[in-house]
Amino acid sequence: PGSKLPQTGTTIFTVMSALAAELGAINLSQGFPDYDADPRLTALVNDAMQKGYNQYAPMAGWMPLREQIAQKVEKLYGAVYNPDTEITVTAGGTQAIFTAIAATINPNDEVIVFEPAYDCYAPAIKLMGGTVKSLELEPPDYRIAWDMVKRLISNRTRMIILNSPHNPTATILRQEDIDELAALVKNRDILILSDEVYEHLVFDGEVHQSMARYPELQERSFIVASFGKLFHTTGWKMGYCLAPAALMAEFRKIHQYIVFSVNTPMQVGITEYLKDESVYNTLPDFFQRKRDFFRDGLSQTRLELLPCSGSYFQSVSYKHITDIKDCDYAIQITREHGVASIPVSAFYSKGTDHKILRFCFAKKQETLEKAVERLMKL
Amino acid sequence: PGSKLPQTGTTIFTVMSALAAELGAINLSQGFPDYDADPRLTALVNDAMQKGYNQYAPMAGWMPLREQIAQKVEKLYGAVYNPDTEITVTAGGTQAIFTAIAATINPNDEVIVFEPAYDCYAPAIKLMGGTVKSLELEPPDYRIAWDMVKRLISNRTRMIILNSPHNPTATILRQEDIDELAALVKNRDILILSDEVYEHLVFDGEVHQSMARYPELQERSFIVASFGKLFHTTGWKMGYCLAPAALMAEFRKIHQYIVFSVNTPMQVGITEYLKDESVYNTLPDFFQRKRDFFRDGLSQTRLELLPCSGSYFQSVSYKHITDIKDCDYAIQITREHGVASIPVSAFYSKGTDHKILRFCFAKKQETLEKAVERLMKL
Ligand SMILES: CSCCC(=O)C(=O)O
Ligand SMILES: CSCCC(=O)C(=O)O
Repeated sequence: PGSKLPQTGTTIFTVMSALAAELGAINLSQGFPDYDADPRLTALVNDAMQKGYNQYAPMAGWMPLREQIAQKVEKLYGAVYNPDTEITVTAGGTQAIFTAIAATINPNDEVIVFEPAYDCYAPAIKLMGGTVKSLELEPPDYRIAWDMVKRLISNRTRMIILNSPHNPTATILRQEDIDELAALVKNRDILILSDEVYEHLVFDGEVHQSMARYPELQERSFIVASFGKLFHTTGWKMGYCLAPAALMAEFRKIHQYIVFSVNTPMQVGITEYLKDESVYNTLPDFFQRKRDFFRDGLSQTRLELLPCSGSYFQSVSYKHITDIKDCDYAIQITREHGVASIPVSAFYSKGTDHKILRFCFAKKQETLEKAVERLMKL
Repeated sequence: PGSKLPQTGTTIFTVMSALAAELGAINLSQGFPDYDADPRLTALVNDAMQKGYNQYAPMAGWMPLREQIAQKVEKLYGAVYNPDTEITVTAGGTQAIFTAIAATINPNDEVIVFEPAYDCYAPAIKLMGGTVKSLELEPPDYRIAWDMVKRLISNRTRMIILNSPHNPTATILRQEDIDELAALVKNRDILILSDEVYEHLVFDGEVHQSMARYPELQERSFIVASFGKLFHTTGWKMGYCLAPAALMAEFRKIHQYIVFSVNTPMQVGITEYLKDESVYNTLPDFFQRKRDFFRDGLSQTRLELLPCSGSYFQSVSYKHITDIKDCDYAIQITREHGVASIPVSAFYSKGTDHKILRFCFAKKQETLEKAVERLMKL
């Protein structure tokens, strides 16, 4: 028997991070911070271990954490989720995404995915026998053409996957998008998988359009969130999923067989930490400063900045410099200038190459400074 | 669309642990220790967090940990696994099992499962469109009738799932089983998924028959192991999978989309801890003392002991006392006598009821004492 995912190699994140490590380059490829987590948070996790919270957590998550999550979501988006039946703690956003797809996609179901797209959606859909219906969005604005989406819908359409703030393009959904989406799914049996792992990374005073804000969308949505992005601890692999009870019941049927439950001391530590709203309320400013600093720097290089409204990624176009493919250029810059990035063509199933690179700016100021200095030489 | 796992409710472990908690009963149902983890281990994990190991680990695992695992496996079983291509760190044994099945089982493939069986095998197989071919084993010895297994094999048989030491029956595979298995799979394209999470919990000087000991079996096996069982930290959800490179390549294709990677500070802490062989070499004695103590106690009750060669579970039969169904009796004992157990019928797809209960003895001496005291009143 052959491979179940024949086209799948190692993800671009693994490839570029490995190359950066091998060459000692500044790694602005894979999205993760290079500064420390809050010592108060790590101390809370340590406390939990010392106090003996080292055995299985309940399958759906440590209840006080689910309660904290419910409070946060209600405060931010006005939606009331029942911790008992509508919130599940997961081993990161990725596990939540995989589980939501595994719980709902049957053979021949169609799922609408906008590209460029984070690389874990399509393989999960295919593994469940589903079909990916993708719609390519165009730089620099990557607006969703909703009339095109409508044309993609058939009676086999089971799900639409959204991601705002968006990785890799740094766009966010706007009120118009929400209105179009709501009109589109109305009276149709279509689920929404909303990847909101960058929910707090929205800039310039804009609003994060969580599905949780809109009852008519919320009632059909799996919403995925990440503590790794929230607390600068991507390596902890902690996240959660929100969904109405009937959907969450299906999610948990699969969740319990994928991981059963999630790291207990981390859940207990995070519960306490999350009580202080400032740990997430300060994030937009924190990252906007990094974004502004990095954009200022890049604007002095020959790279051309694309808009950045959210997430911790900045895209740049380089076609005015060179005509090389984005994969090759990303590797070339890593080798010759010591700065690793992600070629955005890797986020298109057809490898569509708009000659755009993605840089992660969740980095110390000195890292960003050094990277800009090197990129000046392009 | 209906449920993808219509027959799936909440697992028996969640149900019984919740009942025990609600009633304040002694919880010998779900398999987890009630004593503390080694403070040296938790300190090592804390060190890793303090040193800043809080970002994504490599997809396949922290390399020094994979190297430690390779050394341990070679020392114990003589098998050489390449850390680079043949070892992957997982979010617990459950995630490894799910991933191995997801990576290899296609629609209409058949998988042979012995029952009673841990509850996560069948749902994963069904989710992939595979068919479970189950063979019921009979108490008190639960020997595998290999001629019956042979009759179950068809040209669609893709995998056999083994579990030794066995949950819930506490049996272990013997040399004869290995010989029969080897003869059976020879010249057939059949994979083995070997759930060895209780590998160190083998009593009376017996040998753990890891698939890693037998090259002709090892070459077709996914072997699943658990740090939760090893270090008395079931809530950390840390484990690993071993497989030859070609199988592991398929495993990782799925692993990277299920969780991407596993908790970094836990991996770093465990790496250091695992360097001391005594942390696992002392486990058989440690648990044999608990087993002996608990069996001695139970032998003074009206419950009838079944053999226990491995794992941290003790089964008892009660049909000489009462004719009630095992589910009902487990609940009755929890309510009336304050000791929670697992009804073994829950491990049979058809609910076959031999009137047997499973108790977990990975508990403090005083817990076991108190439980026995209560069970004396049956
Ligand atoms: C899980 S590796 C990818 C991290 C990330 O979100 C990104 O770089 O896009
Ligand atoms: C993951 S909950 C079940 C724990 C366990 O291995 C058991 O009790 O059988």
